[in-house]
Amino acid sequence: MVSTLITGIGELTTNDEPPPADPALVIDGDRIAWIGEAGQAPAADDRVDVEGRAVLPGWVDSHTHLVFAGDRTAEFAARMAGKPYTAGGIAVTVDATRAASDEQLAGVLRRHVAEALAQGTTYLETKTGYGLTVADELRCAEIAAREADEVTFLGAHLVPPGESTEDYVDLVRGPMLDAVAPHVRWADVFCETGAFDEDASRAVLTAAARRGLGLRVHGNQLGYGPGVRLAVELGAASVDHCTYLTRSDVDALAQSDTVATLLPACDLSTRQPLPDARALLDVGATVALASNCNPGSSYTSSMAYCVTTAVLQMRMSVAEAVRAATWGGARALRRENEVGLLRTGARADVHVLDAPSVTHLAYRPGVPLTHAVWRAGRRAR
Amino acid sequence: MVSTLITGIGELTTNDEPPPADPALVIDGDRIAWIGEAGQAPAADDRVDVEGRAVLPGWVDSHTHLVFAGDRTAEFAARMAGKPYTAGGIAVTVDATRAASDEQLAGVLRRHVAEALAQGTTYLETKTGYGLTVADELRCAEIAAREADEVTFLGAHLVPPGESTEDYVDLVRGPMLDAVAPHVRWADVFCETGAFDEDASRAVLTAAARRGLGLRVHGNQLGYGPGVRLAVELGAASVDHCTYLTRSDVDALAQSDTVATLLPACDLSTRQPLPDARALLDVGATVALASNCNPGSSYTSSMAYCVTTAVLQMRMSVAEAVRAATWGGARALRRENEVGLLRTGARADVHVLDAPSVTHLAYRPGVPLTHAVWRAGRRAR
Ligand SMILES: [Zn+2]
Ligand SMILES: [Zn+2]
Repeated sequence: MVSTLITGIGELTTNDEPPPADPALVIDGDRIAWIGEAGQAPAADDRVDVEGRAVLPGWVDSHTHLVFAGDRTAEFAARMAGKPYTAGGIAVTVDATRAASDEQLAGVLRRHVAEALAQGTTYLETKTGYGLTVADELRCAEIAAREADEVTFLGAHLVPPGESTEDYVDLVRGPMLDAVAPHVRWADVFCETGAFDEDASRAVLTAAARRGLGLRVHGNQLGYGPGVRLAVELGAASVDHCTYLTRSDVDALAQSDTVATLLPACDLSTRQPLPDARALLDVGATVALASNCNPGSSYTSSMAYCVTTAVLQMRMSVAEAVRAATWGGARALRRENEVGLLRTGARADVHVLDAPSVTHLAYRPGVPLTHAVWRAGRRAR
Repeated sequence: MVSTLITGIGELTTNDEPPPADPALVIDGDRIAWIGEAGQAPAADDRVDVEGRAVLPGWVDSHTHLVFAGDRTAEFAARMAGKPYTAGGIAVTVDATRAASDEQLAGVLRRHVAEALAQGTTYLETKTGYGLTVADELRCAEIAAREADEVTFLGAHLVPPGESTEDYVDLVRGPMLDAVAPHVRWADVFCETGAFDEDASRAVLTAAARRGLGLRVHGNQLGYGPGVRLAVELGAASVDHCTYLTRSDVDALAQSDTVATLLPACDLSTRQPLPDARALLDVGATVALASNCNPGSSYTSSMAYCVTTAVLQMRMSVAEAVRAATWGGARALRRENEVGLLRTGARADVHVLDAPSVTHLAYRPGVPLTHAVWRAGRRAR
């Protein structure tokens, strides 16, 4: 096990104790071993001087759909030419995913995980949901479990064309859940008009909770609806999208432990309005930012783009946006003592920017600012 | 002189003749020597297979302010915390620029030109405008002329605090213009409430035209105003910002040779509305996209971010946005037969994306997609 002392830190974001004036940190194995004043630093095997750059926890991307195959570039281009977005396009990815080999699916996932890591994402959740048969959801879950930090079962992504909703819900909460549950930590439902209504969503989520899975909900993306209310009622760790929230949805989130995960790249990529982050933050709800990386509605792995958009267009401060994309995502995955923060004992997920402060993530939109990345103590860039 | 054959092109954007089915191109010295069917390609010294990637002309960034010193991160952060943007912050950069040595100013400019080039910007305009004395505008122009492709004199950026507008305008159109004119191709005026009004703008621009300089105008950024009208009347090559346009401004642009240069990163960075690109395009006005890279209102060198924003948020098609950020910028600089297009005889400014099509520039917001860059025939990345 090699230890590394990082010095010359221009600005240190810990999401924990305020750092000292001239901070330094030591990575030992896969952990943060020490944070303190540079002058007091313990000996280490290696030393990296980051020459005044900003250091922060790696991004925690708590919402992606990366077990997929196929191409939807043409659908995106059509949408940009004025065709409205509907959930229907998911079926295209389902067909391609079913037709792909395990090796192809693992290759696509690995490529995107690597692309995200190169941009500072050190902890990443991904979902099933393009298989939609017992066998395909199972293999998607197994592949995801090998390549991603966290896996969510999203059999309830779409009722496969030609199947009845009732029969499909019974499949999802029965045999499909039984098959997939050993490989995943979370279950999720696309609770939206055109996908799964409140009763169907509740049926799937309560079955998953009985199997010991944590809960997540896709809700309130395309219009007002029951998603947020249901997520809070069932104690879901996160409800994701939150583009259309009523006052009572906002208040329910503020009084709950459910994180509101905002996906601004998705809203922009589907030409939807951006969510009202200020309403949530101002009443004390916990907000996360995630990419929703998927080939249909939000094909980006750039957490920096989400942060930039949150600051420039959603009236989040830089500090709020950076925290939401690190600690917020960790909290949405109930890993907030492990990742998304820099603290002795936490995983050594360290992101060094080619800039003197995190403010530059919004001040310099689009400029690639990732200078160096350690993931679980291993230099990844 | 070394020649290079580029093959394996997945999609070729020329902004000129439609390419053949399996296109290839040859760079010879600093020029495009040949474009045609790969099977017909002439012999070349080197060969680069881009393995299905998209190839397009390098970005032409026709509007930057990169002869500066000092730091305005705190001003940006304050603005994001709710303080409104005013032109006043420019004076901070003026003080720092005057205090900087020539070598410091050249270093800042070179660093930003290199950063832009690494992201695919192969032709770049920059402006004076942070000197505002005869001596400082002159040295800024000289430095810019050494480092940038095109230089614009923007003595009329701001009336220096404590000086009378009338006296300053007389200085700009008199001794300052005399000193700077041999080093620049363009003159520009910040025609906006709080900066230079219509009469002052006209006085500066007509003096510059008499000296043989081409004209550009900063106009209609912070509100409706005379900028566009004046630019069209005086035959300016470009009027930049165009955030607030009346119907008659749009019509005047459509009937003119003046390019409407849109600066969406600036609008977002100052929390302004985005310009109505569709109104301009739908009546046949020529639109350019540029970064407006400067330390105050738009500190980005990312032309990709401008393209992404134009597609996702300004209802430009991908083809329109890519053309505006290449050929449109070239046209705004009256270089449209030289750069911003791929044609035999044009400058070999070639941008290879790490994606199969230019659509990915909007489909994959924030993901760094520049794979390779040639500038004037030299491999830059
Ligand atoms: Zn999703
Ligand atoms: Zn400008």
